[in-house]
Amino acid sequence: MSEPIVPDAAPWRATVLTLYPEMFPGPLGHSLSGDALARGTWSLEPRQIREHGLGRHRNVDDTPAGGGAGMVLRCDVLGAAIDAATPADDARPRLLMSPRGKPLSQARVRALAEGPGAIIVCGRFEGVDERVIEARNLEEVSIGDYVLSGGEIAALVLIDACVRLLPGVMGKHASGVEESFEGGLLEYPHYTRPREWEGRTIPDVLIGGNHAAIARWRADRSRALTRARRPDLLQRDES
Amino acid sequence: MSEPIVPDAAPWRATVLTLYPEMFPGPLGHSLSGDALARGTWSLEPRQIREHGLGRHRNVDDTPAGGGAGMVLRCDVLGAAIDAATPADDARPRLLMSPRGKPLSQARVRALAEGPGAIIVCGRFEGVDERVIEARNLEEVSIGDYVLSGGEIAALVLIDACVRLLPGVMGKHASGVEESFEGGLLEYPHYTRPREWEGRTIPDVLIGGNHAAIARWRADRSRALTRARRPDLLQRDES
Repeated sequence: MSEPIVPDAAPWRATVLTLYPEMFPGPLGHSLSGDALARGTWSLEPRQIREHGLGRHRNVDDTPAGGGAGMVLRCDVLGAAIDAATPADDARPRLLMSPRGKPLSQARVRALAEGPGAIIVCGRFEGVDERVIEARNLEEVSIGDYVLSGGEIAALVLIDACVRLLPGVMGKHASGVEESFEGGLLEYPHYTRPREWEGRTIPDVLIGGNHAAIARWRADRSRALTRARRPDLLQRDES
Repeated sequence: MSEPIVPDAAPWRATVLTLYPEMFPGPLGHSLSGDALARGTWSLEPRQIREHGLGRHRNVDDTPAGGGAGMVLRCDVLGAAIDAATPADDARPRLLMSPRGKPLSQARVRALAEGPGAIIVCGRFEGVDERVIEARNLEEVSIGDYVLSGGEIAALVLIDACVRLLPGVMGKHASGVEESFEGGLLEYPHYTRPREWEGRTIPDVLIGGNHAAIARWRADRSRALTRARRPDLLQRDES
Protein backbone atom coordinates (compact mmCIF):
# COMPACT_ATOMS: atom_id res chain seq x y z
CA MET A 1 0.00 0.00 0.00
CA SER A 2 1.16 3.53 -0.71
CA GLU A 3 1.64 5.71 2.32
CA PRO A 4 -0.80 8.57 2.85
CA ILE A 5 0.22 11.79 1.15
CA VAL A 6 2.63 13.59 3.42
CA PRO A 7 3.30 17.25 2.79
CA ASP A 8 6.48 17.14 0.81
CA ALA A 9 8.93 19.99 0.92
CA ALA A 10 10.95 19.11 -2.19
CA PRO A 11 11.02 22.00 -4.66
CA TRP A 12 9.99 19.71 -7.53
CA ARG A 13 7.66 16.78 -6.94
CA ALA A 14 6.77 13.92 -9.26
CA THR A 15 3.84 11.64 -8.47
CA VAL A 16 3.59 8.63 -10.77
CA LEU A 17 0.42 6.54 -11.08
CA THR A 18 1.36 3.11 -12.36
CA LEU A 19 0.70 -0.61 -12.18
CA TYR A 20 4.47 -1.09 -11.75
CA PRO A 21 5.61 1.16 -8.89
CA GLU A 22 8.64 -1.14 -8.48
CA MET A 23 10.04 0.36 -11.71
CA PHE A 24 10.68 3.63 -9.81
CA PRO A 25 13.07 5.32 -9.19
CA GLY A 26 14.95 2.69 -11.26
CA PRO A 27 17.60 4.49 -13.34
CA LEU A 28 16.65 7.81 -11.72
CA GLY A 29 18.08 6.51 -8.44
CA HIS A 30 21.61 6.71 -9.91
CA SER A 31 23.93 9.39 -11.24
CA LEU A 32 22.95 13.07 -11.20
CA SER A 33 19.21 12.53 -10.70
CA GLY A 34 19.85 9.99 -7.93
CA ASP A 35 22.17 12.36 -6.08
CA ALA A 36 19.60 15.15 -6.42
CA LEU A 37 16.83 12.82 -5.18
CA ALA A 38 18.93 11.95 -2.13
CA ARG A 39 19.59 15.65 -1.47
CA GLY A 40 15.86 16.45 -1.62
CA THR A 41 16.10 18.66 -4.72
CA TRP A 42 13.17 16.68 -6.06
CA SER A 43 10.90 13.90 -4.81
CA LEU A 44 9.29 10.88 -6.41
CA GLU A 45 6.11 9.23 -5.21
CA PRO A 46 5.07 6.13 -7.20
CA ARG A 47 1.45 5.16 -6.49
CA GLN A 48 -0.11 1.80 -7.31
CA ILE A 49 -3.26 2.22 -9.44
CA ARG A 50 -4.33 -1.29 -8.43
CA GLU A 51 -5.04 -0.11 -4.87
CA HIS A 52 -8.17 1.37 -6.40
CA GLY A 53 -8.97 -1.78 -8.36
CA LEU A 54 -12.36 -3.48 -8.09
CA GLY A 55 -13.34 -6.57 -6.16
CA ARG A 56 -11.28 -9.29 -4.59
CA HIS A 57 -8.83 -9.34 -7.52
CA ARG A 58 -8.48 -5.56 -7.64
CA ASN A 59 -9.34 -5.51 -11.33
CA VAL A 60 -8.22 -2.38 -13.16
CA ASP A 61 -9.08 -3.13 -16.78
CA ASP A 62 -11.78 -4.59 -18.99
CA THR A 63 -12.34 -5.46 -22.67
CA PRO A 64 -12.76 -2.60 -25.15
CA ALA A 65 -16.28 -1.46 -25.94
CA GLY A 66 -16.96 -2.30 -29.58
CA GLY A 67 -14.54 -5.24 -29.54
CA GLY A 68 -10.91 -5.61 -30.43
CA ALA A 69 -7.71 -6.95 -28.90
CA GLY A 70 -6.17 -5.92 -25.61
CA MET A 71 -7.60 -4.45 -22.44
CA VAL A 72 -8.56 -0.90 -21.49
CA LEU A 73 -7.80 0.76 -18.15
CA ARG A 74 -11.13 1.59 -16.47
CA CYS A 75 -12.11 5.23 -16.00
CA ASP A 76 -13.60 4.67 -12.54
CA VAL A 77 -10.47 2.96 -11.24
CA LEU A 78 -8.02 5.46 -12.70
CA GLY A 79 -10.24 8.39 -11.71
CA ALA A 80 -10.24 7.20 -8.09
CA ALA A 81 -6.45 6.70 -8.18
CA ILE A 82 -5.93 10.23 -9.52
CA ASP A 83 -8.31 11.75 -6.96
CA ALA A 84 -6.58 9.96 -4.08
CA ALA A 85 -3.14 11.14 -5.25
CA THR A 86 -4.00 14.79 -5.77
CA PRO A 87 -5.41 17.16 -3.17
CA ALA A 88 -7.83 19.76 -4.56
CA ASP A 89 -5.22 22.52 -4.34
CA ASP A 90 -2.55 20.54 -6.20
CA ALA A 91 -1.33 22.91 -8.91
CA ARG A 92 0.83 20.36 -10.72
CA PRO A 93 -0.07 19.51 -14.34
CA ARG A 94 -1.59 16.06 -14.88
CA LEU A 95 0.14 14.23 -17.68
CA LEU A 96 -0.72 10.96 -19.40
CA MET A 97 2.18 9.32 -21.19
CA SER A 98 0.69 8.21 -24.52
CA PRO A 99 1.81 7.84 -28.14
CA ARG A 100 -1.31 9.86 -29.05
CA GLY A 101 -0.04 12.86 -27.11
CA LYS A 102 1.68 16.06 -28.10
CA PRO A 103 5.36 15.35 -28.77
CA LEU A 104 7.53 16.29 -25.80
CA SER A 105 9.82 19.22 -26.59
CA GLN A 106 12.72 20.78 -24.74
CA ALA A 107 10.56 23.91 -24.33
CA ARG A 108 7.83 21.86 -22.57
CA VAL A 109 10.51 20.16 -20.45
CA ARG A 110 11.86 23.54 -19.38
CA ALA A 111 8.37 24.82 -18.51
CA LEU A 112 7.67 21.70 -16.45
CA ALA A 113 11.05 21.99 -14.68
CA GLU A 114 10.24 25.58 -13.73
CA GLY A 115 6.90 24.53 -12.21
CA PRO A 116 6.06 22.62 -9.01
CA GLY A 117 6.43 19.16 -10.58
CA ALA A 118 4.04 16.79 -12.33
CA ILE A 119 1.45 14.11 -11.77
CA ILE A 120 2.20 11.44 -14.34
CA VAL A 121 -0.21 8.67 -15.31
CA CYS A 122 1.32 5.61 -16.98
CA GLY A 123 -0.99 3.74 -19.33
CA ARG A 124 -0.69 0.01 -19.98
CA PHE A 125 -2.61 -2.52 -22.06
CA GLU A 126 -4.40 -1.21 -25.13
CA GLY A 127 -5.09 2.21 -23.64
CA VAL A 128 -7.03 4.25 -21.10
CA ASP A 129 -10.78 4.89 -21.13
CA GLU A 130 -11.18 8.22 -22.93
CA ARG A 131 -13.62 9.56 -20.34
CA VAL A 132 -11.05 9.78 -17.55
CA ILE A 133 -8.72 11.71 -19.87
CA GLU A 134 -11.51 14.26 -20.38
CA ALA A 135 -12.92 14.30 -16.86
CA ARG A 136 -9.59 14.65 -15.09
CA ASN A 137 -8.14 16.95 -17.72
CA LEU A 138 -5.13 14.77 -18.50
CA GLU A 139 -2.57 16.26 -20.90
CA GLU A 140 -1.43 13.50 -23.24
CA VAL A 141 2.33 13.62 -23.78
CA SER A 142 4.28 11.51 -26.28
CA ILE A 143 8.03 11.03 -26.03
CA GLY A 144 8.29 9.92 -29.66
CA ASP A 145 6.69 8.17 -32.64
CA TYR A 146 7.06 4.59 -31.45
CA VAL A 147 5.10 2.29 -29.17
CA LEU A 148 6.29 1.18 -25.71
CA SER A 149 4.94 -1.59 -23.51
CA GLY A 150 3.65 1.05 -21.11
CA GLY A 151 4.02 4.61 -19.94
CA GLU A 152 6.56 3.86 -17.21
CA ILE A 153 9.77 4.24 -19.23
CA ALA A 154 8.27 7.30 -20.92
CA ALA A 155 7.69 8.76 -17.44
CA LEU A 156 11.36 8.08 -16.59
CA VAL A 157 12.36 9.99 -19.74
CA LEU A 158 10.18 12.98 -18.88
CA ILE A 159 11.34 13.13 -15.26
CA ASP A 160 15.03 12.77 -16.18
CA ALA A 161 14.76 15.58 -18.73
CA CYS A 162 13.13 17.86 -16.13
CA VAL A 163 15.31 16.97 -13.14
CA ARG A 164 18.60 17.70 -14.89
CA LEU A 165 17.39 21.31 -15.35
CA LEU A 166 16.61 21.85 -11.65
CA PRO A 167 18.97 24.28 -9.90
CA GLY A 168 22.17 22.60 -8.75
CA VAL A 169 21.61 19.24 -10.46
CA MET A 170 23.97 19.46 -13.42
CA GLY A 171 26.71 21.31 -11.54
CA LYS A 172 29.92 21.27 -13.49
CA HIS A 173 28.79 18.44 -15.75
CA ALA A 174 27.10 20.43 -18.46
CA SER A 175 26.54 23.92 -19.66
CA GLY A 176 22.77 23.74 -19.93
CA VAL A 177 22.88 26.26 -22.73
CA GLU A 178 24.99 25.08 -25.67
CA GLU A 179 22.93 21.98 -26.19
CA SER A 180 20.92 20.33 -28.90
CA PHE A 181 17.46 21.94 -29.24
CA GLU A 182 18.06 24.75 -26.76
CA GLY A 183 19.11 26.91 -29.70
CA GLY A 184 16.83 25.12 -32.16
CA LEU A 185 19.82 23.34 -33.77
CA LEU A 186 21.64 20.07 -33.33
CA GLU A 187 24.89 20.27 -31.43
CA TYR A 188 28.25 20.60 -33.22
CA PRO A 189 30.78 17.72 -33.10
CA HIS A 190 32.93 17.31 -30.00
CA TYR A 191 36.61 16.36 -29.75
CA THR A 192 39.01 15.81 -26.90
CA ARG A 193 42.45 14.29 -26.31
CA PRO A 194 44.29 12.49 -27.81
CA ARG A 195 45.07 14.84 -30.69
CA GLU A 196 45.52 11.92 -33.07
CA TRP A 197 43.80 8.55 -32.84
CA GLU A 198 43.85 5.82 -35.50
CA GLY A 199 45.08 8.41 -37.99
CA ARG A 200 42.17 10.74 -37.22
CA THR A 201 43.03 14.21 -35.93
CA ILE A 202 41.17 16.97 -34.15
CA PRO A 203 40.20 19.75 -36.64
CA ASP A 204 42.98 22.38 -36.65
CA VAL A 205 40.65 25.25 -35.87
CA LEU A 206 39.83 23.76 -32.46
CA ILE A 207 43.53 23.63 -31.53
CA GLY A 208 44.40 27.12 -32.81
CA GLY A 209 43.12 29.14 -29.87
CA ASN A 210 41.24 31.65 -32.05
CA HIS A 211 38.02 31.83 -30.09
CA ALA A 212 36.06 33.73 -32.73
CA ALA A 213 37.08 31.18 -35.38
CA ILE A 214 36.10 28.31 -33.06
CA ALA A 215 32.69 29.85 -32.40
CA ARG A 216 32.17 30.35 -36.13
CA TRP A 217 33.22 26.77 -36.94
CA ARG A 218 30.89 25.37 -34.32
CA ALA A 219 27.93 27.47 -35.50
CA ASP A 220 28.60 26.38 -39.10
CA ARG A 221 28.84 22.70 -38.18
CA SER A 222 25.72 22.95 -36.07
CA ARG A 223 23.75 24.45 -38.93
CA ALA A 224 25.13 22.01 -41.51
CA LEU A 225 24.38 19.02 -39.30
CA THR A 226 20.85 20.24 -38.69
CA ARG A 227 20.28 20.88 -42.39
CA ALA A 228 21.52 17.38 -43.27
CA ARG A 229 19.76 15.44 -40.55
CA ARG A 230 16.83 17.48 -39.34
CA PRO A 231 15.67 20.05 -41.88
CA ASP A 232 12.34 20.05 -40.02
CA LEU A 233 14.03 21.88 -37.12
CA LEU A 234 15.20 24.67 -39.43
CA GLN A 235 11.71 25.06 -40.87
CA ARG A 236 10.28 25.32 -37.39
CA ASP A 237 12.94 27.89 -36.56
CA GLU A 238 12.00 30.05 -39.53
CA SER A 239 8.28 29.99 -38.88
CA MET B 1 34.38 -6.34 -14.10
CA SER B 2 32.16 -7.64 -16.87
CA GLU B 3 32.38 -11.30 -17.61
CA PRO B 4 34.03 -12.40 -20.84
CA ILE B 5 31.65 -12.62 -23.75
CA VAL B 6 29.92 -15.95 -23.62
CA PRO B 7 28.17 -17.17 -26.75
CA ASP B 8 24.60 -16.23 -26.05
CA ALA B 9 21.76 -18.21 -27.53
CA ALA B 10 18.96 -15.68 -27.01
CA PRO B 11 17.22 -14.85 -30.30
CA TRP B 12 17.58 -11.09 -29.67
CA ARG B 13 20.61 -9.72 -27.85
CA ALA B 14 21.21 -6.23 -26.51
CA THR B 15 24.69 -5.16 -25.41
CA VAL B 16 24.77 -1.78 -23.68
CA LEU B 17 28.00 0.20 -23.21
CA THR B 18 27.53 2.58 -20.32
CA LEU B 19 29.12 4.25 -17.30
CA TYR B 20 26.07 3.14 -15.29
CA PRO B 21 25.60 -0.60 -15.85
CA GLU B 22 23.65 -0.69 -12.56
CA MET B 23 20.78 1.07 -14.37
CA PHE B 24 20.12 -2.17 -16.32
CA PRO B 25 17.84 -4.05 -16.65
CA GLY B 26 16.01 -1.58 -14.35
CA PRO B 27 12.41 -1.25 -15.54
CA LEU B 28 13.05 -3.88 -18.24
CA GLY B 29 13.36 -6.48 -15.48
CA HIS B 30 9.63 -6.19 -14.77
CA SER B 31 6.36 -6.81 -16.62
CA LEU B 32 6.32 -8.23 -20.17
CA SER B 33 9.98 -7.48 -20.97
CA GLY B 34 11.13 -8.90 -17.63
CA ASP B 35 9.18 -12.12 -18.16
CA ALA B 36 10.63 -12.44 -21.67
CA LEU B 37 14.14 -11.77 -20.32
CA ALA B 38 13.69 -14.54 -17.75
CA ARG B 39 12.42 -16.89 -20.46
CA GLY B 40 15.46 -16.18 -22.64
CA THR B 41 13.51 -14.56 -25.48
CA TRP B 42 16.09 -11.78 -25.34
CA SER B 43 19.28 -11.09 -23.41
CA LEU B 44 20.85 -7.96 -21.96
CA GLU B 45 24.55 -7.46 -21.38
CA PRO B 46 25.48 -4.14 -19.77
CA ARG B 47 29.20 -3.39 -20.11
CA GLN B 48 31.11 -0.81 -18.09
CA ILE B 49 32.99 1.61 -20.37
CA ARG B 50 35.20 2.58 -17.42
CA GLU B 51 36.91 -0.82 -17.54
CA HIS B 52 38.73 0.63 -20.54
CA GLY B 53 39.49 3.91 -18.78
CA LEU B 54 43.02 5.27 -18.54
CA GLY B 55 45.40 5.24 -15.61
CA ARG B 56 44.87 4.57 -11.96
CA HIS B 57 41.57 6.49 -11.95
CA ARG B 58 40.28 4.84 -15.12
CA ASN B 59 39.58 8.20 -16.70
CA VAL B 60 37.10 8.11 -19.56
CA ASP B 61 36.65 11.78 -20.44
CA ASP B 62 38.54 15.01 -20.98
CA THR B 63 37.84 18.70 -21.65
CA PRO B 64 36.51 19.67 -25.11
CA ALA B 65 39.06 20.73 -27.73
CA GLY B 66 38.45 24.39 -28.46
CA GLY B 67 37.07 25.04 -24.99
CA GLY B 68 33.58 25.09 -23.54
CA ALA B 69 31.67 23.55 -20.65
CA GLY B 70 31.35 19.88 -19.84
CA MET B 71 33.48 16.87 -20.61
CA VAL B 72 33.80 14.72 -23.72
CA LEU B 73 34.00 10.92 -23.75
CA ARG B 74 37.40 9.94 -25.20
CA CYS B 75 37.53 8.15 -28.57
CA ASP B 76 40.34 5.79 -27.53
CA VAL B 77 38.49 4.64 -24.40
CA LEU B 78 35.13 4.20 -26.08
CA GLY B 79 36.75 2.60 -29.15
CA ALA B 80 38.45 0.00 -26.92
CA ALA B 81 35.19 -0.65 -25.06
CA ILE B 82 33.30 -1.19 -28.33
CA ASP B 83 36.01 -3.48 -29.71
CA ALA B 84 36.05 -5.58 -26.54
CA ALA B 85 32.27 -5.98 -26.61
CA THR B 86 31.91 -6.92 -30.26
CA PRO B 87 33.56 -9.86 -31.98
CA ALA B 88 34.52 -9.20 -35.61
CA ASP B 89 31.60 -11.24 -36.92
CA ASP B 90 29.01 -9.45 -34.81
CA ALA B 91 26.29 -8.47 -37.27
CA ARG B 92 24.30 -6.33 -34.84
CA PRO B 93 23.92 -2.62 -35.65
CA ARG B 94 25.91 -0.25 -33.44
CA LEU B 95 23.74 2.55 -32.13
CA LEU B 96 24.68 5.67 -30.20
CA MET B 97 21.82 7.24 -28.26
CA SER B 98 22.13 10.95 -28.96
CA PRO B 99 19.82 13.95 -29.41
CA ARG B 100 21.72 14.64 -32.66
CA GLY B 101 20.60 11.33 -34.13
CA LYS B 102 17.89 10.32 -36.54
CA PRO B 103 14.54 10.28 -34.72
CA LEU B 104 13.54 6.77 -33.71
CA SER B 105 10.46 5.59 -35.61
CA GLN B 106 8.22 2.57 -35.22
CA ALA B 107 9.51 1.36 -38.61
CA ARG B 108 13.11 1.44 -37.33
CA VAL B 109 12.00 -0.31 -34.13
CA ARG B 110 10.35 -3.05 -36.16
CA ALA B 111 13.48 -3.50 -38.32
CA LEU B 112 15.68 -3.72 -35.23
CA ALA B 113 13.31 -6.21 -33.59
CA GLU B 114 13.48 -8.41 -36.69
CA GLY B 115 17.31 -8.41 -36.55
CA PRO B 116 19.76 -10.13 -34.19
CA GLY B 117 19.69 -7.33 -31.58
CA ALA B 118 21.73 -4.18 -31.04
CA ILE B 119 24.91 -2.80 -29.55
CA ILE B 120 23.92 0.40 -27.82
CA VAL B 121 26.38 3.06 -26.70
CA CYS B 122 25.15 5.46 -24.02
CA GLY B 123 26.74 8.90 -24.08
CA ARG B 124 27.18 11.02 -20.97
CA PHE B 125 28.70 14.41 -20.21
CA GLU B 126 28.77 16.94 -23.04
CA GLY B 127 29.12 14.30 -25.75
CA VAL B 128 31.30 11.72 -27.44
CA ASP B 129 34.45 12.38 -29.47
CA GLU B 130 33.27 12.56 -33.08
CA ARG B 131 36.11 10.35 -34.33
CA VAL B 132 34.84 7.21 -32.60
CA ILE B 133 31.40 7.76 -34.11
CA GLU B 134 33.01 7.77 -37.56
CA ALA B 135 35.64 5.07 -36.97
CA ARG B 136 33.26 2.56 -35.40
CA ASN B 137 30.38 3.46 -37.69
CA LEU B 138 27.96 4.34 -34.90
CA GLU B 139 24.41 5.10 -35.99
CA GLU B 140 23.18 8.04 -33.93
CA VAL B 141 19.60 7.52 -32.77
CA SER B 142 17.44 10.11 -31.01
CA ILE B 143 14.33 9.16 -29.06
CA GLY B 144 12.98 12.73 -29.19
CA ASP B 145 13.68 16.46 -29.29
CA TYR B 146 14.68 16.93 -25.66
CA VAL B 147 17.89 16.47 -23.70
CA LEU B 148 18.46 13.69 -21.15
CA SER B 149 21.21 13.36 -18.56
CA GLY B 150 22.63 10.46 -20.54
CA GLY B 151 21.85 7.77 -23.08
CA GLU B 152 20.85 5.13 -20.55
CA ILE B 153 17.13 5.90 -20.30
CA ALA B 154 17.04 6.36 -24.08
CA ALA B 155 18.52 2.86 -24.41
CA LEU B 156 15.77 1.52 -22.13
CA VAL B 157 13.19 3.13 -24.43
CA LEU B 158 14.70 1.61 -27.54
CA ILE B 159 15.04 -1.87 -26.03
CA ASP B 160 11.50 -1.83 -24.60
CA ALA B 161 10.05 -0.81 -27.97
CA CYS B 162 11.92 -3.66 -29.71
CA VAL B 163 11.37 -6.37 -27.11
CA ARG B 164 7.59 -6.01 -27.05
CA LEU B 165 7.57 -6.91 -30.77
CA LEU B 166 9.57 -10.14 -30.32
CA PRO B 167 7.55 -13.32 -30.92
CA GLY B 168 5.57 -14.36 -27.85
CA VAL B 169 6.24 -11.26 -25.75
CA MET B 170 2.96 -9.40 -26.01
CA GLY B 171 0.79 -12.50 -25.93
CA LYS B 172 -2.80 -11.60 -25.29
CA HIS B 173 -1.96 -8.14 -23.98
CA ALA B 174 -1.99 -6.25 -27.25
CA SER B 175 -2.88 -6.60 -30.84
CA GLY B 176 0.42 -5.37 -32.25
CA VAL B 177 -1.40 -4.13 -35.31
CA GLU B 178 -4.09 -1.60 -34.46
CA GLU B 179 -1.68 0.75 -32.77
CA SER B 180 -0.53 4.31 -33.02
CA PHE B 181 1.98 4.75 -35.86
CA GLU B 182 1.70 1.24 -37.23
CA GLY B 183 -0.89 2.54 -39.67
CA GLY B 184 0.61 6.03 -39.82
CA LEU B 185 -2.21 7.43 -37.68
CA LEU B 186 -2.84 8.03 -33.99
CA GLU B 187 -5.04 5.50 -32.28
CA TYR B 188 -8.77 6.05 -31.84
CA PRO B 189 -10.27 6.57 -28.34
CA HIS B 190 -10.89 3.56 -26.14
CA TYR B 191 -13.79 2.84 -23.81
CA THR B 192 -14.69 0.04 -21.48
CA ARG B 193 -17.10 -0.66 -18.63
CA PRO B 194 -18.89 0.97 -16.86
CA ARG B 195 -21.30 2.19 -19.51
CA GLU B 196 -21.88 5.42 -17.62
CA TRP B 197 -19.42 7.18 -15.31
CA GLU B 198 -19.82 10.64 -13.81
CA GLY B 199 -22.53 11.33 -16.40
CA ARG B 200 -20.23 10.36 -19.28
CA THR B 201 -21.36 7.50 -21.51
CA ILE B 202 -19.69 5.21 -24.02
CA PRO B 203 -20.51 6.36 -27.60
CA ASP B 204 -23.63 4.50 -28.80
CA VAL B 205 -21.99 3.13 -31.92
CA LEU B 206 -19.56 1.07 -29.81
CA ILE B 207 -22.45 -0.59 -27.97
CA GLY B 208 -24.60 -1.25 -31.06
CA GLY B 209 -22.83 -4.36 -32.32
CA ASN B 210 -22.64 -3.14 -35.92
CA HIS B 211 -19.05 -4.08 -36.69
CA ALA B 212 -18.82 -2.15 -39.95
CA ALA B 213 -20.11 0.99 -38.23
CA ILE B 214 -17.64 0.51 -35.38
CA ALA B 215 -14.73 0.12 -37.80
CA ARG B 216 -15.84 3.24 -39.67
CA TRP B 217 -16.21 5.26 -36.45
CA ARG B 218 -12.77 4.21 -35.28
CA ALA B 219 -11.12 5.04 -38.61
CA ASP B 220 -12.85 8.45 -38.62
CA ARG B 221 -11.78 9.24 -35.06
CA SER B 222 -8.25 8.09 -35.79
CA ARG B 223 -7.98 10.38 -38.79
CA ALA B 224 -9.63 13.34 -37.00
CA LEU B 225 -7.32 12.96 -33.99
CA THR B 226 -4.26 12.77 -36.21
CA ARG B 227 -5.36 15.81 -38.20
CA ALA B 228 -5.93 17.81 -35.00
CA ARG B 229 -2.81 16.77 -33.11
CA ARG B 230 -0.26 15.56 -35.62
CA PRO B 231 -0.88 16.90 -39.11
CA ASP B 232 2.81 16.14 -39.78
CA LEU B 233 1.99 12.40 -39.74
CA LEU B 234 -0.65 12.86 -42.47
CA GLN B 235 1.79 14.79 -44.63
CA ARG B 236 4.35 12.03 -44.25
CA ASP B 237 1.66 9.50 -45.12
CA GLU B 238 0.77 11.31 -48.35
CA SER B 239 4.36 11.69 -49.51
